[in-house]
Amino acid sequence: MDLIERLRAGLPAEALLTDPDVTGSYARDMANFCDAGAPAVVVLPRTVEQVQHVMRTATELRVPVVPQGARTGVSGAANAVDGCIVLSLVKMDRILEINPVDRIAVVEPGVVNAVLSRAVNEHGLSYPPDPSSWESCTIGGNIGTAAGGLCCVKYGVTAEYVLGLEVVLADGRLIKTGRRTAKGVAGYDLTRLFVGSEGSLGVVVRATLALKPALPRQLALVAEFDSVTAAGEAVCRIMADGHTPSLLELMDRTSVRAVNAMAQMGLPETTEVLLLAAFDTPDPAADLAAVGTLCEAAGATQVVPADDAAESELLLQARRLAFTALERIKPAMLIDDVCVPRSQLAAMLAGAAAIAEKYDLTIGVCAHAGDGNTHPLVCFDPADPDEERRARESFDEIMALGLQLGGTITGEHGVGVLKKDWLARELGPDGVALHRGIKQVFDPLGILNPGKVF
Amino acid sequence: MDLIERLRAGLPAEALLTDPDVTGSYARDMANFCDAGAPAVVVLPRTVEQVQHVMRTATELRVPVVPQGARTGVSGAANAVDGCIVLSLVKMDRILEINPVDRIAVVEPGVVNAVLSRAVNEHGLSYPPDPSSWESCTIGGNIGTAAGGLCCVKYGVTAEYVLGLEVVLADGRLIKTGRRTAKGVAGYDLTRLFVGSEGSLGVVVRATLALKPALPRQLALVAEFDSVTAAGEAVCRIMADGHTPSLLELMDRTSVRAVNAMAQMGLPETTEVLLLAAFDTPDPAADLAAVGTLCEAAGATQVVPADDAAESELLLQARRLAFTALERIKPAMLIDDVCVPRSQLAAMLAGAAAIAEKYDLTIGVCAHAGDGNTHPLVCFDPADPDEERRARESFDEIMALGLQLGGTITGEHGVGVLKKDWLARELGPDGVALHRGIKQVFDPLGILNPGKVF
Repeated sequence: MDLIERLRAGLPAEALLTDPDVTGSYARDMANFCDAGAPAVVVLPRTVEQVQHVMRTATELRVPVVPQGARTGVSGAANAVDGCIVLSLVKMDRILEINPVDRIAVVEPGVVNAVLSRAVNEHGLSYPPDPSSWESCTIGGNIGTAAGGLCCVKYGVTAEYVLGLEVVLADGRLIKTGRRTAKGVAGYDLTRLFVGSEGSLGVVVRATLALKPALPRQLALVAEFDSVTAAGEAVCRIMADGHTPSLLELMDRTSVRAVNAMAQMGLPETTEVLLLAAFDTPDPAADLAAVGTLCEAAGATQVVPADDAAESELLLQARRLAFTALERIKPAMLIDDVCVPRSQLAAMLAGAAAIAEKYDLTIGVCAHAGDGNTHPLVCFDPADPDEERRARESFDEIMALGLQLGGTITGEHGVGVLKKDWLARELGPDGVALHRGIKQVFDPLGILNPGKVF
Repeated sequence: MDLIERLRAGLPAEALLTDPDVTGSYARDMANFCDAGAPAVVVLPRTVEQVQHVMRTATELRVPVVPQGARTGVSGAANAVDGCIVLSLVKMDRILEINPVDRIAVVEPGVVNAVLSRAVNEHGLSYPPDPSSWESCTIGGNIGTAAGGLCCVKYGVTAEYVLGLEVVLADGRLIKTGRRTAKGVAGYDLTRLFVGSEGSLGVVVRATLALKPALPRQLALVAEFDSVTAAGEAVCRIMADGHTPSLLELMDRTSVRAVNAMAQMGLPETTEVLLLAAFDTPDPAADLAAVGTLCEAAGATQVVPADDAAESELLLQARRLAFTALERIKPAMLIDDVCVPRSQLAAMLAGAAAIAEKYDLTIGVCAHAGDGNTHPLVCFDPADPDEERRARESFDEIMALGLQLGGTITGEHGVGVLKKDWLARELGPDGVALHRGIKQVFDPLGILNPGKVF
């Protein structure tokens, strides 16, 4: 019996897509320049049992399985491999429980981040992790990639909100990890092992997430700097002074101009760097005033507090548009995601500018400055082979600089296909060997998302 | 060449203890009723290289190694096994770096928790995790056991503060995990795998820890309840109302009387349960007033706010004394550590009381109520075999109840020797098999802390 027939035996007809024109549309996430194969079939299960059937079938037939969420990732982790089963979890999208006393939500993996956020808001709660794709990305994808967002500087990343999981293993067995409780130390932390494992260890079919009380509205300011050194210094002073902004973001002039060109935001274009800071504390105006003073002491040429929450939201909106706006500069873009200790932020930004000059390229930079997480965006035209070569070399050089400054090659986007070689460099051979050993424990046949991560 | 000689070849004389009277004193942590063997030798290394030498020697000679901190643990995880090398990390006690901009500290494993806390305080920073043994326990031990404390309800547990590790593997190789950065998702989360693994996967020789800005002083109140149901209801209302106290602790009448008897604290003894709540917010008095009202609505018979920070500290001091005070009631005590969803706290407390009555035992209960983490303390006399049998049965019945209520057998104390059988029950056979597989990857010869965890 062939793969499709075997799958059909345990799945409703509408859960199986086999038309190559359709399955081909599931071949890639949003990463540029990552290999993707042709899926044999796309499966859209609605139940845990259906996922188990898929994995049992894949194990029996030794067929690779690529788990997918909304495919908004930017490292190729969700890209198909030839002949694989694409296992799309987007139809498993129920919110099963929201509990204000225990401050948890129990969800299926296909729930969209923003849908969950709004649902818990109605109970006076919040689910802070907010990747920029939050209107379309799924919680399962967020867990697979250990996604970050703008709120991380105060509220942390996805990993910190995952209390427990239900996971279908490569052979179809269902296990539970973690807990519904606020604390727990029973055994090894398998939950965290699955978070960020990019579908290489198992298929998450249910998650218990920690929630916070509703977040207060935030008030923002924008500070202008004529050098990355001064902006980096301001970030250092803000953090060393004990502030915990709800957001501390940075855009360079290239990003600002791109956003203005796309959306007529009227952001100031005359200076090198804009720093956005926001607070959701009981007295945000006082905190912003203190931060404004620190920015001025670090050399800000201008500090402009937003008049109100609405104007603050507009500033954050501008920051959220940066990726899309920069994508319009050139036909293609490589997205770096280097995170450095925040004391090295200025060095990282200066280094990225020097690399842009060296390779004669446009590299726009925006950054979650408070985390030291920079996104140098290398804009180029793939029709020009020399420009593409320079783009790729600069992309690598940026990662090398990040490692040299004590950082990591990926703060929040993950490894996928894009940074596999670089992960080996960051981990070293002993680290890679341990990764392979763990992979072997969970997926002895190597059918789960092969060729990703390492 | 025998073990001692081989060890001596790479260690200074003062780092080796071989006198059985001396090595015997390293045989146990603070857990009662856990097996402990006789160490062949105790090693007190001062450098990473010395730890590597020990592990290489142990691998060559197939000798078990039991890593130890200050042996303040309460589950027997640090207990020696016969013929083992006790690897005590207490002499590796240097604070290598405190960085206020990056908000990190880099420390050796033997640094005492309170020593680190005070050192970072001097830089305007805090290291929140505060197990009750914080004046003597080490950071390495805190990492090994994933220790909790009183502050967890607002500031989380040890695991949330460990960014990166240097670990000597079973065969003596040194690996680095994690990062110095605020964020990072490069590869599997090996850091979290080591946290709470009770020395069974490797020997932590260096840790990069996240710090917070200095914590404000807290203000507390005490609320009295005449039933655990009412106290549990108060906890639910406080959390459902969106409060985040810096501390939310509970003591039953047995604990209160024991503390008064030991330390003449003058706590009210007439009611069933005392709830202590504290806030370190900008306006703690307002938050306490709101919480006081919620307590009254839940049935508190009395709500008494502390006059000032000093009086608040005295209340917390009383809570911290509870373990010691209860130990005086009977010659022996079994310490449970069941964590339930906080919505189940009242059911857990009522269940513990029923179990005490059923077995005709004194079971004092204190709890990190805000986390649902209860410590039923079974007091008994081991000279009375029937009482000891009842004590052990009640101890088990408490864990069974915790699991039944959706909780875990250990919120913060760990598994060690004490709860091995119960871990298997919580994880199930597939979970245990994955644990064994991971153990095999890191420690193929099974020399690291054998017989612990599972």
